Amino acid sequence: MDTVKKQMFSLDSYRMECGREIPVTIGFETYGQLNEAKDNAILVCHFFSATSHAAGKYSPDDTEVGWWDALIGPGKAIDTDRYFVICSDTLCNIQFKNPHVITTGPRSINPQTGERYGITFPVFTYRDMTGIQRELVRSLGIEKLVAVLGPSAGGIQTLNWAVHYPDMMEACVVVISGAQMPVLTSLAYLQAAIDVIALDPKWKDGAYNEGEEPEAGLHLALSLMNLAAYQYAWYDDAFSRDAKRDVISTSYQSVPPFVQKFRGAVSERMLPYDASHYVYTARAAMMHDISRGFASLEEALGKIRARVLMIPCTSDLLFPPQYSRQAADIINRQGGRASYYEIDSPNGHMAGVVDAHLFAEPLAAFLRGQDIT
Amino acid sequence: MDTVKKQMFSLDSYRMECGREIPVTIGFETYGQLNEAKDNAILVCHFFSATSHAAGKYSPDDTEVGWWDALIGPGKAIDTDRYFVICSDTLCNIQFKNPHVITTGPRSINPQTGERYGITFPVFTYRDMTGIQRELVRSLGIEKLVAVLGPSAGGIQTLNWAVHYPDMMEACVVVISGAQMPVLTSLAYLQAAIDVIALDPKWKDGAYNEGEEPEAGLHLALSLMNLAAYQYAWYDDAFSRDAKRDVISTSYQSVPPFVQKFRGAVSERMLPYDASHYVYTARAAMMHDISRGFASLEEALGKIRARVLMIPCTSDLLFPPQYSRQAADIINRQGGRASYYEIDSPNGHMAGVVDAHLFAEPLAAFLRGQDIT
Repeated sequence: MDTVKKQMFSLDSYRMECGREIPVTIGFETYGQLNEAKDNAILVCHFFSATSHAAGKYSPDDTEVGWWDALIGPGKAIDTDRYFVICSDTLCNIQFKNPHVITTGPRSINPQTGERYGITFPVFTYRDMTGIQRELVRSLGIEKLVAVLGPSAGGIQTLNWAVHYPDMMEACVVVISGAQMPVLTSLAYLQAAIDVIALDPKWKDGAYNEGEEPEAGLHLALSLMNLAAYQYAWYDDAFSRDAKRDVISTSYQSVPPFVQKFRGAVSERMLPYDASHYVYTARAAMMHDISRGFASLEEALGKIRARVLMIPCTSDLLFPPQYSRQAADIINRQGGRASYYEIDSPNGHMAGVVDAHLFAEPLAAFLRGQDIT
Repeated sequence: MDTVKKQMFSLDSYRMECGREIPVTIGFETYGQLNEAKDNAILVCHFFSATSHAAGKYSPDDTEVGWWDALIGPGKAIDTDRYFVICSDTLCNIQFKNPHVITTGPRSINPQTGERYGITFPVFTYRDMTGIQRELVRSLGIEKLVAVLGPSAGGIQTLNWAVHYPDMMEACVVVISGAQMPVLTSLAYLQAAIDVIALDPKWKDGAYNEGEEPEAGLHLALSLMNLAAYQYAWYDDAFSRDAKRDVISTSYQSVPPFVQKFRGAVSERMLPYDASHYVYTARAAMMHDISRGFASLEEALGKIRARVLMIPCTSDLLFPPQYSRQAADIINRQGGRASYYEIDSPNGHMAGVVDAHLFAEPLAAFLRGQDIT
């Protein structure tokens, strides 16, 4: 695949679910070629902490590739010799400090004031995100997508597409996700993250300056999310206890080596992140409930016209498989067409990203129009 | 059962694993009668946030009974017509403000200084706790216990008894626990709790005054633990989402009703708790590794002479069943006698406390000397 070019999409004004209107600018990437009929496009939506960089490299020297590079490329499950693939950065993208990310959020300058928005930036929802993506897709001249798909928060966006713009895609694939954010996940990893960042004295209600950021709060918030991303045995191996190196210090502040190792891993991961963007994204994830605006979950999922494929992972601790099963059942009970393909991996929730080879084949078949039973 | 009388046990000096020696005073309760041979005693160890009040009532007007009252009493699985049952308050008992709790910890007065210990109080381990309990048991003239048992942190104490004092009990029952604190649990619910409390500006390194306590930090810490105590469907029901009541406010600070309800529940639960005792207890739980001091986990568990019954719960998110299975297997591989009885309940980890009826029969049989297969 050729190196990837980052592109930009702007709207002078977008009206959000909360009622506020703001100008938005987001980055996006594309892989493959849009055909003349403009009917070979696939939209990929990224997960919580990711960016639009779903595949390929920005330059030949890059050591890393996009997060779903295993699926997206010439001859791969999402075949860029056949499809035109789009992926955009979310609003309030957490990786605000990543030079490749283009986003609008609390750290952006409010054109009306010339100052950072801070927490005057309106709370966004993933429904807002899909509305903005729809404008991006239409700006490219595309009226109907072959598919919309994504893992985790990418699955949340996919479901929003399926429910709110039911005629704009033929197929949807919802990986490691569900129709409503589980209450446990909402409270333990999302609301807790917001509360932890807000507890940091440096948070200053989002008005912190560069270099004076609430790093302790953000580190803790990210720790919580990271600890749901895999599963028990994975953590036992990755940060293994070693009682021979435990020092029963007199002080509660001294920590054993496995804690130090984990803290170091989180600190590294945290480098491109911004705390207020983390708060807003956690908020959006927590407020995910596809039934909002409908009389019931059944009514909401009943709006879907696309073929749907739910792909959960057995050991997922953020979105356990029962939520995918429930969504598929509700869709099918109402005459919809939902398939279910569960993957089993020791990587928990992250299997939806790092073990994409486990569902590449059924995904490719599904995109080609085959049923997955 | 007669109303329960709170008793007190003191040692002028106890040498802790960390090397410090301090005077300790803890409360304890007993149910039933110690026989003449002093060979009918059972020690029950309490879980993380509990107290010595394992059964019965302090007064006839009490609305609540002890946490394992379903198991402990005349004719019950732990039959007080037959056994003399002891339960003690832990060091640094979290319910410092509970008038029935007698404990020693950072909020206690250091007799040498006349001031609260604060964080000069030495970090304790659950091994220390069992050493102190052993002195209590011996002070009652008891040389060998019929059994030691408990759920969760009570199981941790039980395993410490079994490994370090192998000749002092005939049987051990380890409920919803394991030989080492899982790394995920250690990091997500225990170290995170310590870090969250320490982040609260009112923490002041444990030197807060009454009325100026780090409540926000403690509330968050307790929230995290509470969110692992049950399991996904339980939370979905207890604090149900209701999209019709969601307000997509512009402000990140407004929370939906299910979050408010959860916060209220945590605030209520928090009333008798102390933040520094929470830190120390979280620390003790996190440092649970029965292999400490041995060449390996195998060697440690190989020290056990007692019959052992492991009782995990299928849906446990703090100590998933594989940890109990692993401990039982290691004991049996080395010629020990470990049985395994898994309960299935929608109550997750808490089933070991609130669903005791699910294992009352095998427990009673096991205490009577029968094998559980």
